[in-house]
Amino acid sequence: MAAPMKATVTVTLKNGVLDPQGRAIESALKGLGFEGVGDVRAGKIVELELADGTSRETVEAMARQLLANTVIENFRIEMP
Amino acid sequence: MAAPMKATVTVTLKNGVLDPQGRAIESALKGLGFEGVGDVRAGKIVELELADGTSRETVEAMARQLLANTVIENFRIEMP
Repeated sequence: MAAPMKATVTVTLKNGVLDPQGRAIESALKGLGFEGVGDVRAGKIVELELADGTSRETVEAMARQLLANTVIENFRIEMP
Repeated sequence: MAAPMKATVTVTLKNGVLDPQGRAIESALKGLGFEGVGDVRAGKIVELELADGTSRETVEAMARQLLANTVIENFRIEMP
């Protein structure tokens, strides 16, 4: 059997949406003494094993229906 | 002023570490009727704006000290 196909969905907050997690990381990095830290944005990544031949449209449907909240989040899909 | 430098740190669970979030996504996708979904792993991504000339070693120190729990997580750094 061939190795399963892999797809990666990266979900990030849209510009203009407040990102409290990113702000917390930013101030924690400054508190640790790191200099020159500007804006920090946090997001999530989902790595999926899929049956061979699964289309990009299917993965896009997964992202729209479950993985991302498209009101406030963007997503991008990487797959072979 | 030049645009700030950007770095992206991707944090994923090590192989063998249980991933309840990934399992929940997997069963939710199946519940929505998507077929051929295998293992699903969830991770996080941190996009940092940094002062020009910040070294990869500095970003690695940020990841080790704050962004990743290196007992159970791997991280990778993408930067120009």
